[in-house]
Amino acid sequence: MTEAEALLIEQAAARLGPKGVITDPRDIEPWVTDWRGRVHGTAPAILAPASTEEVVDVVKLAAEHRVALVPQGGNTGMAAGATPPADGSALLLSMRRMNRIRSLSADNRLAIAEAGVVLATLHDAADGVGMRFPLTLGARGSCTIGGLASTNAGGTQVLKFGTMRSLVAGVEAVLPDGSIHNGLSGLKKDNRGYSIDQLLIGAEGTLGVITAVALRLVPAIAARAVAWVGVADPAAALDLLRFLEARTSSIEGFELIPQQSLDLVLKHIPDTRPPLTGAHEWNVLIEAATSDPQTDVGAELERLLAAALQSGLVSDATLAANEAQAEAFWKLRDSISEAERTEGQTIAHDISVPVGDMPTFLIDAVAEVERAFPGVQATGFGHLGDGNIHFHVRAGGHSAPDWYERDGAEITRFVDDLVTAGGGSISAEHGIGQLKRAEFARLAPPGRIHALRAIKQAFDPLGIMNPGKLVP
Amino acid sequence: MTEAEALLIEQAAARLGPKGVITDPRDIEPWVTDWRGRVHGTAPAILAPASTEEVVDVVKLAAEHRVALVPQGGNTGMAAGATPPADGSALLLSMRRMNRIRSLSADNRLAIAEAGVVLATLHDAADGVGMRFPLTLGARGSCTIGGLASTNAGGTQVLKFGTMRSLVAGVEAVLPDGSIHNGLSGLKKDNRGYSIDQLLIGAEGTLGVITAVALRLVPAIAARAVAWVGVADPAAALDLLRFLEARTSSIEGFELIPQQSLDLVLKHIPDTRPPLTGAHEWNVLIEAATSDPQTDVGAELERLLAAALQSGLVSDATLAANEAQAEAFWKLRDSISEAERTEGQTIAHDISVPVGDMPTFLIDAVAEVERAFPGVQATGFGHLGDGNIHFHVRAGGHSAPDWYERDGAEITRFVDDLVTAGGGSISAEHGIGQLKRAEFARLAPPGRIHALRAIKQAFDPLGIMNPGKLVP
Repeated sequence: MTEAEALLIEQAAARLGPKGVITDPRDIEPWVTDWRGRVHGTAPAILAPASTEEVVDVVKLAAEHRVALVPQGGNTGMAAGATPPADGSALLLSMRRMNRIRSLSADNRLAIAEAGVVLATLHDAADGVGMRFPLTLGARGSCTIGGLASTNAGGTQVLKFGTMRSLVAGVEAVLPDGSIHNGLSGLKKDNRGYSIDQLLIGAEGTLGVITAVALRLVPAIAARAVAWVGVADPAAALDLLRFLEARTSSIEGFELIPQQSLDLVLKHIPDTRPPLTGAHEWNVLIEAATSDPQTDVGAELERLLAAALQSGLVSDATLAANEAQAEAFWKLRDSISEAERTEGQTIAHDISVPVGDMPTFLIDAVAEVERAFPGVQATGFGHLGDGNIHFHVRAGGHSAPDWYERDGAEITRFVDDLVTAGGGSISAEHGIGQLKRAEFARLAPPGRIHALRAIKQAFDPLGIMNPGKLVP
Repeated sequence: MTEAEALLIEQAAARLGPKGVITDPRDIEPWVTDWRGRVHGTAPAILAPASTEEVVDVVKLAAEHRVALVPQGGNTGMAAGATPPADGSALLLSMRRMNRIRSLSADNRLAIAEAGVVLATLHDAADGVGMRFPLTLGARGSCTIGGLASTNAGGTQVLKFGTMRSLVAGVEAVLPDGSIHNGLSGLKKDNRGYSIDQLLIGAEGTLGVITAVALRLVPAIAARAVAWVGVADPAAALDLLRFLEARTSSIEGFELIPQQSLDLVLKHIPDTRPPLTGAHEWNVLIEAATSDPQTDVGAELERLLAAALQSGLVSDATLAANEAQAEAFWKLRDSISEAERTEGQTIAHDISVPVGDMPTFLIDAVAEVERAFPGVQATGFGHLGDGNIHFHVRAGGHSAPDWYERDGAEITRFVDDLVTAGGGSISAEHGIGQLKRAEFARLAPPGRIHALRAIKQAFDPLGIMNPGKLVP
């Protein structure tokens, strides 16, 4: 611990009280390693302010003592953006004590949640007033609103509702100079200059600390229908999506699942069984939902899938008969990563290309990776309708325990080159954090890096906000 | 003309050819006064590049010679953001020759349009492939895509589709250092650092010149239904909107019109007649639309309005019997500003408050303005569902020709104070430009001004991009 850190911790303790400063290494330990367990940092303390004003105090102290802060929510990020550096040169700034839902209005269709509110808590609160916050993802029981906004998180309902960027109506944040940016007015239209809100969304805490977010709500779901569909290939899957979207606005989820991935789930995850009797090289999980109690969304989806079957778009299809079966279908989708990890070593890539290009890209990329790295197995699954696939490369025949360390970086560079050549993004929804920073620096146009650095410098000339993340 | 300007013009002529440099004062004259005819500038030349590379040339020359550029599209802005300064110290940068639709894909639901494409041209092109670009506004025959993006334009369909910010999938721009920002990939998900696209949207050309925009398309309208409804007050209108939105997703337009405004239209605009037999203190124009040929959107709207009538939400309602009548209803709405101008002097305010607060705000603000400035008449009309009202103050009894010059600024300050106290925006959709800069400076929190200046300085340290606009 440096002298400056020690002084900061002491002064912070005086302002935040005993709950606001954590220095016991046993209490710090769970928060200095990233969600995937790949990046290990250290921090001499966790500062945990309970209000926006306390965040201002902490940021001003950090500026005064030139000590860096690493903002953290639920620590569920996929790019180690909330993991402190290994040398202990930064303090963790935990937002978890700022966990109040400040307001929730069905009339205004808005919630204002503090940064530390857990996503599942917000879901429940919205449900309590007949509304819904329509972004969800696997970590919903741990991830926080501040982290979701700071990483512009996606999830499984992006198709209809967009990423966090579409769902955030405003942001409150403490900027590196200690000033409060208040964008919480919840105005639907406001053209007063550059959007600081938009700049903070996806900034991974490098331009300031998000303290609260105004979030758009939609009417609660009255009914949903979940179907499992077999298709010939990803192109047929995309055709099916377009067929459906031209006929209904109820499609919320559309997840592509190769039979290979389904087989691994059936092999490794207990209490799972195939939804269709025959095997199909490709599968699609479809969720349709409506907020209108008079719409029979199940009948509608059944009618549309029957028409798709008849026109040959679909090989086979089954509708979940009840909520339990719907959950079972989703479990198959949500267990793919776990099943793959059980099978062996896996390198995950969160990539996107233009939606219409994805079917061809996916087939080609799998072939090219398997040709370039003989023995490995590549698959892509996930959010086809968003052009966002989780492209996983499995060790396959390579059982050496150091396969990941030895070949991982090279495989990732290979995949990232394919994505870049396809006009895509090497980070569709997970962000850059620490893990993708080198690849981002390698592949981004120099003008872009220059612009990001200029913005970072403009907001954080002292470099106290999450240094070493995002901006190369 | 300064020596630097003369040199720049000469060098630009060599690069852009004779069509690219306009110096005849008669050709310049139509473009140096703003749309409303209130702000008069001068410029020694209009530079009109025909490609992104030519824009790069112009921007680099401007940087070299330290000559400011004022980007301009259709010159239809409402805040004089594209009007050059009066002292001739800047050149106009017309984007109108960059008018190519580079691509249009129904499959990808995307169009890439250059900055100078006129909105109506894009509408027609999208229609030609069975799609639709769902933003529209009165100036659609003149306004350009670059200007719409640079001002984050709104219009009458924001309720369902949002402002330009929601409809822009990516931006290509030339930054003040002459580098090209290419955000045209059209990726639905891309989390690689700060969103330069979002920063350029609504920046009014002060951070760079938008050269092309990727735009989201939606399926073409199969059918629309337009209704005119009488309601007791703005609160009832908002209740009606919520009643409808809970039961259908087809509502695209929901415009509030006070009887006073309708009366002026009927008085001054030829070929207009009242849609309902009785008079209602408040009226609502509703547009519902569907892309599904199987949905009878007229029958749906009729059924919902009948239910609203029965429950007392609505006093009277009539559905347009055909397209001609639908157009006639819209003409009533679209003619309000013209009718008011014919009646006498008017001061327009484009304001927003949170949607749920608008009914009360509107009633209170009208009363307060009319009390503070005896004799004037205040009304608000427009996009109730967006919390965005065009709040107009008419001279009323004040027939003095200098009323606007004498009292205008004071009335505007009064209205802006009310809006600010109500947590609203003094510029909902028109932007800041030149006209609202002083009021923005007066009312914005100092931290916000500081942040805007820091961003401006980071992008445009030489101050060559549209100086004197937006940033106070």
